[in-house]
Amino acid sequence: MQSIEKLVKNPSFNTFIILIILLNGVVLGLLTFDLSPGVSAVLKVIDGLCLVIFCIELTLKLVAYRLNFFRGGWNIFDLVVVVIALLPATGGLSVLRALRVLRLMRLVTAIPSMRRVINGMFAALPGGASVAAVLFIMYYVAAIIGVNFFSKTVPQHFGDLGTTFFTLFKMMTLEGWPDIATVVMEQHPRAWVFFVVFIVFTTFTTLNLLFGIIVDAMEQAKESDVRELLAEQGIEVTEVSAELRLVKIEEDVSQIRAMLEQMSGKDKAKPS
Amino acid sequence: MQSIEKLVKNPSFNTFIILIILLNGVVLGLLTFDLSPGVSAVLKVIDGLCLVIFCIELTLKLVAYRLNFFRGGWNIFDLVVVVIALLPATGGLSVLRALRVLRLMRLVTAIPSMRRVINGMFAALPGGASVAAVLFIMYYVAAIIGVNFFSKTVPQHFGDLGTTFFTLFKMMTLEGWPDIATVVMEQHPRAWVFFVVFIVFTTFTTLNLLFGIIVDAMEQAKESDVRELLAEQGIEVTEVSAELRLVKIEEDVSQIRAMLEQMSGKDKAKPS
Amino acid sequence: MQSIEKLVKNPSFNTFIILIILLNGVVLGLLTFDLSPGVSAVLKVIDGLCLVIFCIELTLKLVAYRLNFFRGGWNIFDLVVVVIALLPATGGLSVLRALRVLRLMRLVTAIPSMRRVINGMFAALPGGASVAAVLFIMYYVAAIIGVNFFSKTVPQHFGDLGTTFFTLFKMMTLEGWPDIATVVMEQHPRAWVFFVVFIVFTTFTTLNLLFGIIVDAMEQAKESDVRELLAEQGIEVTEVSAELRLVKIEEDVSQIRAMLEQMSGKDKAKPS
Amino acid sequence: MQSIEKLVKNPSFNTFIILIILLNGVVLGLLTFDLSPGVSAVLKVIDGLCLVIFCIELTLKLVAYRLNFFRGGWNIFDLVVVVIALLPATGGLSVLRALRVLRLMRLVTAIPSMRRVINGMFAALPGGASVAAVLFIMYYVAAIIGVNFFSKTVPQHFGDLGTTFFTLFKMMTLEGWPDIATVVMEQHPRAWVFFVVFIVFTTFTTLNLLFGIIVDAMEQAKESDVRELLAEQGIEVTEVSAELRLVKIEEDVSQIRAMLEQMSGKDKAKPS
Repeated sequence: MQSIEKLVKNPSFNTFIILIILLNGVVLGLLTFDLSPGVSAVLKVIDGLCLVIFCIELTLKLVAYRLNFFRGGWNIFDLVVVVIALLPATGGLSVLRALRVLRLMRLVTAIPSMRRVINGMFAALPGGASVAAVLFIMYYVAAIIGVNFFSKTVPQHFGDLGTTFFTLFKMMTLEGWPDIATVVMEQHPRAWVFFVVFIVFTTFTTLNLLFGIIVDAMEQAKESDVRELLAEQGIEVTEVSAELRLVKIEEDVSQIRAMLEQMSGKDKAKPS
Repeated sequence: MQSIEKLVKNPSFNTFIILIILLNGVVLGLLTFDLSPGVSAVLKVIDGLCLVIFCIELTLKLVAYRLNFFRGGWNIFDLVVVVIALLPATGGLSVLRALRVLRLMRLVTAIPSMRRVINGMFAALPGGASVAAVLFIMYYVAAIIGVNFFSKTVPQHFGDLGTTFFTLFKMMTLEGWPDIATVVMEQHPRAWVFFVVFIVFTTFTTLNLLFGIIVDAMEQAKESDVRELLAEQGIEVTEVSAELRLVKIEEDVSQIRAMLEQMSGKDKAKPS
Repeated sequence: MQSIEKLVKNPSFNTFIILIILLNGVVLGLLTFDLSPGVSAVLKVIDGLCLVIFCIELTLKLVAYRLNFFRGGWNIFDLVVVVIALLPATGGLSVLRALRVLRLMRLVTAIPSMRRVINGMFAALPGGASVAAVLFIMYYVAAIIGVNFFSKTVPQHFGDLGTTFFTLFKMMTLEGWPDIATVVMEQHPRAWVFFVVFIVFTTFTTLNLLFGIIVDAMEQAKESDVRELLAEQGIEVTEVSAELRLVKIEEDVSQIRAMLEQMSGKDKAKPS
Repeated sequence: MQSIEKLVKNPSFNTFIILIILLNGVVLGLLTFDLSPGVSAVLKVIDGLCLVIFCIELTLKLVAYRLNFFRGGWNIFDLVVVVIALLPATGGLSVLRALRVLRLMRLVTAIPSMRRVINGMFAALPGGASVAAVLFIMYYVAAIIGVNFFSKTVPQHFGDLGTTFFTLFKMMTLEGWPDIATVVMEQHPRAWVFFVVFIVFTTFTTLNLLFGIIVDAMEQAKESDVRELLAEQGIEVTEVSAELRLVKIEEDVSQIRAMLEQMSGKDKAKPS
């Protein structure tokens, strides 16, 4: 048991898995080309072997960590993408055949610096939750207004709620919105109000959301960089942000000043 | 009277209203599908009940707060969207039928964290007012130039001031501007100057405007976060911004230094 | 002479000119509509009167400031747009007829807060000059490569240097570039390298340029806001930027510490 | 030997080369026009002379710096673009004929302020390497999924891995993606999931990457500006970033406070 844990925690083990993922990535890439049946068969065997290795790897980790295995979000992600690859790709599940490629995303989970990028993004998401919710409400309201006004006259874009959501998503990327607007405005000349209001509000809110998340993630990364650097120098950081640190300094400095003024006053008073 | 105020200020009351808005949102969403007449009738009844509850809610608030009710921008917004839903949707007002969905925007006003997002945006707007005014003047001048030059030859895009404004808005989103430019340049080969100048200037000014507002809103949010954190620790903040705080510290520190130099001089002088 | 200077510097004089510009803007806007000959004639008379007022205004300013008048960039701008409106709009100069609308841009020069926005942009331009030069060289090289490769096969987009510059400008706004790429790649299958490299490099450099200018302008605006606030409180600012201020504080603080350590040592030494 | 080094390091030498590059740029630009054979021949001679001068310049530099020449990335770039211009432009190498224009990029390497812009971008690249790797993995996985699902039904966009990569690049610029989506969704109605997920994730990651690099480059530029300014004033900078500087100040200030409190306590204790 302990020897399994040692094996799993060995850095070489992780390096080996990274190499297997890379190999599997190359194989899956090659399989998209028109190959002779022989080559294709060999590649499929290698692909199968990679999958077997992933299964063994995850089994070993399950044995080593037991229920703790399920505490790490990355482990669950690894498990899900490998299980998807094992499912029979028939009937209603045929879509899963293509999703087997998601296995390659394991590269992100296996290399620490890339895992940090994704972690940073996820850590910044909650800060954007309120903005995202406002954006979703705007969307939902715009979609219902769109269906109510245009579902009869422009069914290709606003036929039902699903179609309308997709149309609004297209419009949010600004791609081809004038074409949609032209079609709609032939029937509803004043519909430009809807389009202009929707575009101005969602573009602004989306930019706000993206910015908020990106800036947040950057600042957190910078903070943790500073912490690491200071930890190396043996300095413990007490305040959490530059803003708070500044306030703390301000307070200290003004108290120092007051103390000095008192001392200086006493000094002056002493001789008399 | 006082019991009404108590009821209205009760957090459970707000939670109840939020649930009703969510229910209404689901109902209005379902009504966009083709439903059997029976289901549709039931949903319309629920929709009507939601509206009745909103009316009662606002009446209670009016009774409780009286004229103070009209001091809050959110209250007025709530009142307007509910009154819109009550108006008869016939004749010239048929457009209001669809706008009844705006009621769902009340969710934003009812949930504090989302209200804060919108408040933040509005608070940052004045800072962008000058840039927005410059942008509007650019627009207006470009629109008049567009009409004067192209109204005869390209009436579909520059026929009158309204059409031209819409064309320029399309061009500002950069969507399909080469198509418009191609049509115009068949008649006016040198019109590329107009398009290039317009796109460079408005794109830059718009980005400037959006950035200014978003960065402003972020900084204000950060400031108020710091204030809250400090208030919890019992520290009162004296200076308003990080910049000012820094200047204050600089002044204090240089005065402390001067005082110390004087004291140190006196100390040296004393023994002699 | 002095009374003219007084008049010109009187705030009411500026307010009056702003009102005339606004009136002129409304008139020029109305003139874009199809009006009855009578109304149109009246509007043209008002337009002429506005122009006369501007001429008188600028003459007064010229008399009051003499050659100093030409030191202010805004004055020169005012003069140019008014002179354009006076030129006879015939023959080769007919384009100037439409440019008479540029007069309305005087609103930006007349209102201080809007003038500050434009000043801020111009002040930030030098910082972006190097990036802009790099961008221009990329453009020029890409244009010559484009003409050399594609001028024979795709003359509609790459026929000569001018056409190619316009095509590359379209591609930099990303608008319709796949259509251009498709046409070119029918003849030159490997031309995707040109398009991908051009788009990646110019998009990145353009973003870099815009960002640099906007962030620069914002920081300068913030700095001058802080200065104003401090001037009101009677504090003189010594260091120019937050960064420098921080370094100054750091130096002062470490010297204070050294002085205190010395004093504390002397204090300890005294009793013995 | 030494006289060659002196010549090469002489600022006038660099200025002369810059002028030659500018001349060559003008010549190469003029050659894109339809010219009379005589003018064209003269221009080609000038072009050849410029190339000869570049060869002499690089030879002199090679003689002066010997192997150190290859240590500077800019020197290697200069050498490569000049060698490309010397290669015979026949057969499979005919593409190199057009690439001779890359020589003009030498202007960037010859002017220090522009070289700094490019250096800044390259210096900021490593910080974005992890994000770029995540982006590439997303791309690769999306490309394989695209080929697996759509290669049979939509070969014009997803026929093989190369075509799919180009299609995904188009989609990342958001240009024309609704057209591609419409074609695909005629065959695969649920393909909108693929498009929406791909666009949301890659747009966000790309923005993250661009932002990270640009902000990084800006901060490094600001830091080095501050350093230069301080060096002029004879101040040595000890800490590397504003964040670290702040932490250092905080620590110093709190120690000063402690020392003063101790001294003040001793002072009080003395009289007794």
